Amino acid sequence: MGDDAQKKSSGSLDALQAEVTKAMEGAKSLQDSASSFISRNSSEEQSLRLRAQSLDSTIRRLRSQIYSLHHHDNKAVDPKLCEKLEEDLHRATCVLTDGDAGSFLPPKAHGGFLRMFLGPINVRSSSKDIQLKVKEEYNAYRDRTALLFLLFPFALLILRSWIWDGCLPTFPVQAYQAWLLFLYTGLSLRENILRVNGSDIRPWWIYHHYCAMFMAMVSLTWDIQGQPNCAQKQRGVELFLQWAMMQGVAMLLQNRYQRQRLYTRIALGKANRMDVVWGETAGVDGQLWLLCPILFIMQGFEAYVGLQLLKTALFGDVTEWQVSLCGVLLILMAIGNFVNTVQTLMVKSRFKAKMKKTKSKQEL
Amino acid sequence: MGDDAQKKSSGSLDALQAEVTKAMEGAKSLQDSASSFISRNSSEEQSLRLRAQSLDSTIRRLRSQIYSLHHHDNKAVDPKLCEKLEEDLHRATCVLTDGDAGSFLPPKAHGGFLRMFLGPINVRSSSKDIQLKVKEEYNAYRDRTALLFLLFPFALLILRSWIWDGCLPTFPVQAYQAWLLFLYTGLSLRENILRVNGSDIRPWWIYHHYCAMFMAMVSLTWDIQGQPNCAQKQRGVELFLQWAMMQGVAMLLQNRYQRQRLYTRIALGKANRMDVVWGETAGVDGQLWLLCPILFIMQGFEAYVGLQLLKTALFGDVTEWQVSLCGVLLILMAIGNFVNTVQTLMVKSRFKAKMKKTKSKQEL
Repeated sequence: MGDDAQKKSSGSLDALQAEVTKAMEGAKSLQDSASSFISRNSSEEQSLRLRAQSLDSTIRRLRSQIYSLHHHDNKAVDPKLCEKLEEDLHRATCVLTDGDAGSFLPPKAHGGFLRMFLGPINVRSSSKDIQLKVKEEYNAYRDRTALLFLLFPFALLILRSWIWDGCLPTFPVQAYQAWLLFLYTGLSLRENILRVNGSDIRPWWIYHHYCAMFMAMVSLTWDIQGQPNCAQKQRGVELFLQWAMMQGVAMLLQNRYQRQRLYTRIALGKANRMDVVWGETAGVDGQLWLLCPILFIMQGFEAYVGLQLLKTALFGDVTEWQVSLCGVLLILMAIGNFVNTVQTLMVKSRFKAKMKKTKSKQEL
Repeated sequence: MGDDAQKKSSGSLDALQAEVTKAMEGAKSLQDSASSFISRNSSEEQSLRLRAQSLDSTIRRLRSQIYSLHHHDNKAVDPKLCEKLEEDLHRATCVLTDGDAGSFLPPKAHGGFLRMFLGPINVRSSSKDIQLKVKEEYNAYRDRTALLFLLFPFALLILRSWIWDGCLPTFPVQAYQAWLLFLYTGLSLRENILRVNGSDIRPWWIYHHYCAMFMAMVSLTWDIQGQPNCAQKQRGVELFLQWAMMQGVAMLLQNRYQRQRLYTRIALGKANRMDVVWGETAGVDGQLWLLCPILFIMQGFEAYVGLQLLKTALFGDVTEWQVSLCGVLLILMAIGNFVNTVQTLMVKSRFKAKMKKTKSKQEL
C-alpha cells in the first residue's frame, strides 16, 4: 500500500477523531439541557397541578353549598340567583376540565382491568390532540367491528343452510367466538383508556363488555356438534347468531347517531370532545326515535335468547354447563342494558325539560 | 321565617357569589398559565428532539465509517485508535440513551400488537421513574406467574391420581388454559410496552408469547374427555402439564438470575436499567451453569411433548386437529427457544473474550 493511501486513511481518521470528540461533547451538552429542562418542567408542572387540584376542590365545595341552600331553606334565598351561580360554576368546571388545564387535574383512577393487562404504565395523554385521536380511533374501531358483527354471523347462517345441511361444524363457530373474545378485550381496553383520558362513558358499558368477554371465553369451550339431534342442540347457537346480526345493525345505527350528536355538541360548544355521547339531545331526535325501538327490541331478543338457552339446559337433553351459564349472562346483560338505556333517556328528557324552561324564560 | 335567618342566608349567598366569581377567575387564569406552559414546553421539547435526532444519526454515521476503516483497509490505520474511537462512540451512545436525553429520541415503533389492543395511545413514558416502575412490575408479575405456573399443573396432576381416577375432567383443564391465555396476553402487552420504553428484550421472546397465546386459545377448544380410552387420549395433556411444571421451575430460576444480573450491571454502571438482561456476564456465572442445562433440558422436553402430540394425532385414534396444531406449535417454540438461547450465550462468550483481552492489555 502506498504512502498516499496511508496518509489519506490516517487523515480521515484524524477527521473522524475530531468528529467523535464533537459527538461526545454534543451528547453531554444535550444531556445537560435535557435534565435541566425536565427538572424545571417538573417543578412548574407540580405547581400547576396543585393549583388545579385546589380549584377543583373549591368548585366542589361551592357547588354542594349552593345546592344545599337552593334545596333546603328554599324560601329564604333567591332561587334565580342560585341557578345563576350554579351555571357559573358549571362554566368554571368546563374551563377547568375541557381546556389545557384539564391535563393537570389528578387523573381518574387507573382501574384494575388496565393494571391487570398493562401494569402500571400511564395511558393518560396530556395532549388534547392525542386524546382526540384515541377517541376517533375508538369510533373507527367500532365501525369496522359493527360491519364484521353483521357479516360474520350472516356468513355462518348462510353457509349452514347452503352447504352444511343445517348443522354448523364446530371450527367456524369457534373461530367466530375467538374473534369475539379478541374484539371485546380490545373494546374493554380502549374504553378503559378513554375513561382515564376524561371520557364520561357509563361504567355499565364497560362491565357489559367484560361480561361479553367472559361469555365468548365460555362458549369457546362449548362443543356444539351434538350427536343425537344437531338442529335441536344448535337452536341456541342459531338464535345467538341471529341476535349478533341485529346487534351489528344496531351498532352501525348507534355509531352514526353518536357521531352526529358529538359533532352537533362540539359545534354548539357544549361537549368535551372526549365524551362518549349520552345525555342531552340537540337536534337529531329523529334518529333517536329510530334507534330507541331497535335498542329495546334487541334487548328483548337478547333476554329471549338467554331464556331459550336456559330452557334447553334445564328441560332439554343438553347438559353442558356452558349453555346455562351463557343463558344467565345474556339475561343479565339484557337487564343491565335496558336499565342503562332507560336511565340515559331519562337524563336526556330531564335536560330537555330544563332547556325548554330556560328557553321560555328567555322568551318572556 | 325570621328576618335574621333571611339576612343570614342572603349574606352567605353574597359571600358565595364572591367566591364563585373568584373561582371563575381562578379557572380562567389557570387555563391561561396551563396553555402558555404547554405551548412553551412543546417548542422547547421540539428543539431537544431535533438535537437528539441529529446527534443520534451522526453517531450512527461515525460508527459505520470507523467500522469500515477498521475492517477493510486494516493495515493503513491504527487498530488501537479505531478501538478507542469505537469505545468513545459507545460512551456517547450511553450518555444519549440512558440519561434524560433518551426521552427525546424518536420512540421505537409502536408495533401492531399494541395498536390492535390499545389503539393509538402512547405508552412511552418520558419519566425514568415510571419506566423503572414498569420494569419492576414486570419482574414482580413474572415472579407471581412462575409460582402459579408451578402450582396449577401440580394441583391438576395430584388431583388426577388422587380423586379423578387417572382421567382429568374437562373443566379444570379448560380453566387452566383460560388462565394461560389471560397470562400470555398480559405478558405480551407488558413486553411490548417495555420495548416501547427502551428495553432491549429480544423480539423472539415476544413472538414466543404470541405462539403461547395462540396455543392456549386452541387448546381451550379441545375436548379432552375421550370416551374410549381416557388415559391414552390424555397422555398429551399429562405431558404438557409436566412440561408446564418444569417451565415454572425454570422461570423462577431465570427470574432470580436476571434480577441479580441486572443489579450487578447497574452497580457496575453498565446497564440501562430498562434492559431485560441478556448479553455480557458479570460475576454470576455460577448460576448460569445451573440455568443453562435446565433451559436446554426444558427445550428438549418441549420438543418431545410436541412430537408425542403429533404422533398421537397422526398414528393414534385421536383425530382432533387441535392436537396436531399444538404439537407443531410446541416444536416450533422449542426450536426458536433453542436458537435464541444459543445466540444469547454466544454474545455472552464473545463479550467475555473481549473483556479478557482488554483486561490482559491493561495488565501489560
